[in-house]
Order: sequence, then structure tokens, then C-alpha cells
Amino acid sequence: MSRFLSERLMNVTPYTPGEQPQDQKYIKLNTNESPYPPSPAVLDAVSRAEVEKLRLYSDPACAELLNTAAKHFGLRPSQIMPGNGSDENLFFALRAFCDEEHPLAYADITYGCYGVWCGLMHIPSRIIPLKEDFTLDPTDYYGLGATIVLANPNAPTGLALPRSAIEGILKANPDNVVIVDEAYVDFGGESCVPLIDQYENLLVVQTFSKSRQLAGARLGLAMGNEKLIADLNRVKFSLNPYNINRLTLKAGQAALEDTAYFDTTRAAIVETRGWTKQELEARGFSVLDSRSNFLFASTIRKDGGELYKKLKEKGVLVRHFDAPRIGSWLRITIGTPDEMRALLKALDEILEV
Amino acid sequence: MSRFLSERLMNVTPYTPGEQPQDQKYIKLNTNESPYPPSPAVLDAVSRAEVEKLRLYSDPACAELLNTAAKHFGLRPSQIMPGNGSDENLFFALRAFCDEEHPLAYADITYGCYGVWCGLMHIPSRIIPLKEDFTLDPTDYYGLGATIVLANPNAPTGLALPRSAIEGILKANPDNVVIVDEAYVDFGGESCVPLIDQYENLLVVQTFSKSRQLAGARLGLAMGNEKLIADLNRVKFSLNPYNINRLTLKAGQAALEDTAYFDTTRAAIVETRGWTKQELEARGFSVLDSRSNFLFASTIRKDGGELYKKLKEKGVLVRHFDAPRIGSWLRITIGTPDEMRALLKALDEILEV
Repeated sequence: MSRFLSERLMNVTPYTPGEQPQDQKYIKLNTNESPYPPSPAVLDAVSRAEVEKLRLYSDPACAELLNTAAKHFGLRPSQIMPGNGSDENLFFALRAFCDEEHPLAYADITYGCYGVWCGLMHIPSRIIPLKEDFTLDPTDYYGLGATIVLANPNAPTGLALPRSAIEGILKANPDNVVIVDEAYVDFGGESCVPLIDQYENLLVVQTFSKSRQLAGARLGLAMGNEKLIADLNRVKFSLNPYNINRLTLKAGQAALEDTAYFDTTRAAIVETRGWTKQELEARGFSVLDSRSNFLFASTIRKDGGELYKKLKEKGVLVRHFDAPRIGSWLRITIGTPDEMRALLKALDEILEV
Repeated sequence: MSRFLSERLMNVTPYTPGEQPQDQKYIKLNTNESPYPPSPAVLDAVSRAEVEKLRLYSDPACAELLNTAAKHFGLRPSQIMPGNGSDENLFFALRAFCDEEHPLAYADITYGCYGVWCGLMHIPSRIIPLKEDFTLDPTDYYGLGATIVLANPNAPTGLALPRSAIEGILKANPDNVVIVDEAYVDFGGESCVPLIDQYENLLVVQTFSKSRQLAGARLGLAMGNEKLIADLNRVKFSLNPYNINRLTLKAGQAALEDTAYFDTTRAAIVETRGWTKQELEARGFSVLDSRSNFLFASTIRKDGGELYKKLKEKGVLVRHFDAPRIGSWLRITIGTPDEMRALLKALDEILEV
């Protein structure tokens, strides 16, 4: 920390991303990337001719991508805003709809960035514990008088609420924005996008990082009524108008258009998830009912942190959170069937000792 | 504006970027892009194999790019931080080194985003007028007791301060960070990078958008002593740890390594600039002594706004700022010699009428 740093930032605790080793020697099941490459249409869209055009700024309005996304989601372009990853959209939303007097409510066990952003922007956190079994009681969020963010499916648990439960929360908080972070929705959750025209307080955030194989391209979409999206654009155009690069705009558009590839790859992940869950349960693991591209699992036979370390020694990276209530659990990304077989083999070796 | 928007944002005035028409029917001399494509090394670096890897997150530490940049600039990797465009780095710097009690000082005529960011973050602005001839008197910045940002060369004037003048400002403000925005430095300015090891209060920001032909890739570098860079990383990792996409990291590295292409293209622009300046002066224009990839020019024969409009009708886009003191001026990006001949021809037609 330099002696010039603003006092406002001295107590900020930055986010710790999952390990991203650059040597590719691990079976990487720790940051919920897709085991499949982007659609062939994406590979074609990021052509040499498009790379040549990098000399030109990207379209700050992202018009072509918005048109494609609007068609895809049954919305108008003015109801959508792309971000440099869904993280940026979530940050913009918190900047727009929370402040030092307007808190953010979220679960005690959920995506870690919500709390980090509150710290950065001095937004009071109202933390609402999940139930003992990690499920969320929607009525805990009724009439809160706070902006709300819900990851649905939740991370790192993978548990999902039905759309009707979110609708209850929307109705019970008509004067506050409810942000639904649908990073993992394509693997078995129910999206709230169809509710956008009915609830002016609903903001849905999705990402291209998981189900569209574009984690490295950084692209997310915020979707909601036109006024909420105009508010987000006010933040974007006051912060970084050219926030999305040209190639990502092209890649995102191609990924949205190739619905067949999207359906095939997410179905493959859902199938591998089901099979992996059974195999873990057969080994005595507790495994939550995930609707995401990861499993949250624990065993009484070994501590989570220890298991994480042993797996890493055997070349398999998973995610362990050294946090209250979930210290004995591991979050395991669904990879290819071969990768999951390697995980199971490594677990067998570790647990037999 | 929605009824949910934080009061803190109601009076924010977003930045208005230059027009980015997507139909490519204009000779585009309005946003200071390079008329030359990125280096062939960049085209090779953004390969199909790299596009396939988009399924994986980018390295949040940007280690490879930092190593290349450190070698290039004669710094250590810990003295550099990449941003999603230099705009993001500047925003991070203001977030780190200014707050509601710690103002930002900058010129009345300079890059418009400085004021926009102050608005967004409720940072008081201390605006210091340039002299009548648009030059900056360094002594105006002595002992200010404020964080300072200087665009050098300045935009939209193109005028540059020698390194020694900036050094005077650094010495006269030992307890405040001085940010030097060197977006245009490669076209004839003197960089302050060699001063980094001497002044702990110096932060230099550069961009790949102009002299490295990567406006559409979104990449900038902040450079300074390790503690300042650690402060910026604290903001980055609290806001968007994966702020730079994989392909941009690769493109930036290749662009830095191809120094021959960099030198050839910037020399070409400097030569075209000299020639264009003479041609404009021969037509009676006042043209400032630009050290950038644009010219700032005015004529008493026609109002700046009117000239901008007439040029646009003739298919030539330049930038006009409807702002105090510079309403009669145009900022004209240096394109290829052919593009500049087309500009001159259009001007001749407009002014002969």
C-alpha cells in the first residue's frame, strides 16, 4: 500500500480468483470453465480480417451484438447491456442501485464478489444466512427495503430456486431492484428473463463464460426493463465507454447464433454431472442437487482443505473455500467424462490410504 | 433514469465518445485510430488455436504480457499493470488516489473523461486553465496539494511538455500522485517512464490504441513504482479481476515485440502530420505544433461546427468539441497520405464556396 492511497480503500479486501496456472499441467476443475472449445462458428467469426480491424475502436453501443441477443432472448435491444464479463455488469448494477445509505442483501454462502464490491463502494451488506441444508427460503427476502442479489443457481452450492420463488421476492420488494445472477442457469435452472416485461425491478445477469465456452473472452449480458438498462449505461459511459473489445463482440454474437452447439454441449455437461454425482455418492460423498456445471461435495472421511491439497498433488485442481460452514466441501467443475474419471481415480487413491 | 437509481448518480454526465459509424462509408479522422493495421505479428498471435482457448479464463495476473512489457520499458513486472484500455487504468488511479476530500487537478482543455470520472466518483475537480495559446505553465501546478493528471501530449491540442517540465511538477508535489497520460507520446513526446525509479509519486499511463494499432482490442498500461501499482491492483482485484481477455493479452504482447513495425508506422504518421500541417497552413489555417497523431486546427474563414458538418457531408469525419475556447477548432486524426489528400480536397471545396 502506498502512502498516497485513499483512506476509503485501505480496508478493502480484494477478491481471490481461483488458481489459473498457465502451464496446463493440471486437470482443471476449479473455475467452472467449459471442457469444450467455443463453437466452430466462434472460431470462424474471429477471423484474420476481424483481427486486422483491431486498429478501429469497437462500437461503444455494441449494436450488432444487442440485436442478436434481443432476438435470442425475445427482448428489445434497449433491454440489454453487455459487460466486460458479468462481473462488470454486476459492479455497474451495484454502483447504480446501491450506495452508502442503500444496502445490498445477499446470502451468507454465495458468490464472493458481492461482498467485495460492497467493500469497494462502501455499500452496507445485509447478509442473510441460507438454511442448514444450504437452501434459500424466499420469504427471508420479503420486504427487505434493500437491493437484493441472488445467484440462481447459487454458487458454490449449485442449488436453484424455481422462477416462481424469485417472482415472490420480486413482488415482495416492488421498490427495490432484485438482481438475479444467472451465471449457471443454462445447466438446469429456470431463467427469469421471461419475467422482465412484468417486473420493472428485475435485473437478470448472464455470462458467456460457462455455457458458451467464452470465459477468456469476457462477456456478460445484463437484461431488464429499459430504464434499468439506461441506468447501467449511464455508469458504463461514465466509466469506460469502450468496455468491450471488437473480437469479443464478434465471438459473442456467433456463440449466441449457434444454438445447436450450445444445446449439445450443455446437455453433455448435464449428463456428465449426473453420472459423476452418482459415482461420488457411491463413494460416500454428500453431493448437493446441482443445477450448474459443478458439484458441491463433501465426505466425512477427509477434510475439504486436505482433500483439495491431495488432489492437487495428483494433478487435479478443484476449488476449496476456507470459509465458515463450507470448509469441509469441495466445488468440482464438470469436465469431460475422461477428466471426471481421472478425478474419481485420484479420489479413490487418496481415500484408500 | 429509473426510480431505483442511486441519488449519487443522478447528476453524473457520461462521456460522449466520438462517432463510431459501423458502415465504414466515411474517411474516419475523428477518434485518433491508426490508419495502419496491427503488426503482422499480432495477426499471427491471435491464431485459431488461441481462439479455441477462449473456453479458459485469462490469466488475472497477466504475467506473460507484464514480462514482455517490463523488458520493453526497462521496468520490473511489478511496476506495470495492464487495463481494459487506458481509460480503465485512469479510472482505477482516480479511485485509488482521489476521493471526496482529495481533489483532482487538470487543465480546462484536456481529455474529457477526467471530469466525467470526477463526477462519477464525487471527486472535487480543480480545473487549471491553459494559457491563451493553449500551452501549459508547469508552475501553475506547483504545490497544489491535489492529485494531478496531465495528458502529455495534451488532447485535443497535441501540445507537449518536455520531460523536465513534468519533473518540476513531480518535485513540487512530493505528497501527491502525478498521473501522466501518455496516450499520444509515441508520436513525438518525451515519455516520463525513465523517471519512474526516481519519483515515487509518478504514475505513467500509456495505451495500445494509437501507436500500436489496437484501439479495438482495449489495452493500456499503467507504470509506476511498485506501491502505486499494488494500489491499482487492489482496485482491479476488488472490481474485475479478469479485466483483460485472452486474445488482447496475446495481441498486446506481439505488438510490443514488433518494434520495427511500431517504428515504421509511427514515423509514417509523423511524416504525414508534418506534410498535412504545411498544407493546412498554406490554406490559412492556424495549426498547433502537434506531437500526437492528430492536428488541432482552425480557420477564421468558417466556424468549427459548420466545417465539421460540411466535411461529414463530404464523407470525412473529424472531431469538433462544442466547448468553451475551442469551438472554432477541429481535431483531425492523421490518416494515410491518401486520406489526408481527400480531407484537403474536401476543405478546398467547402472553403471556395
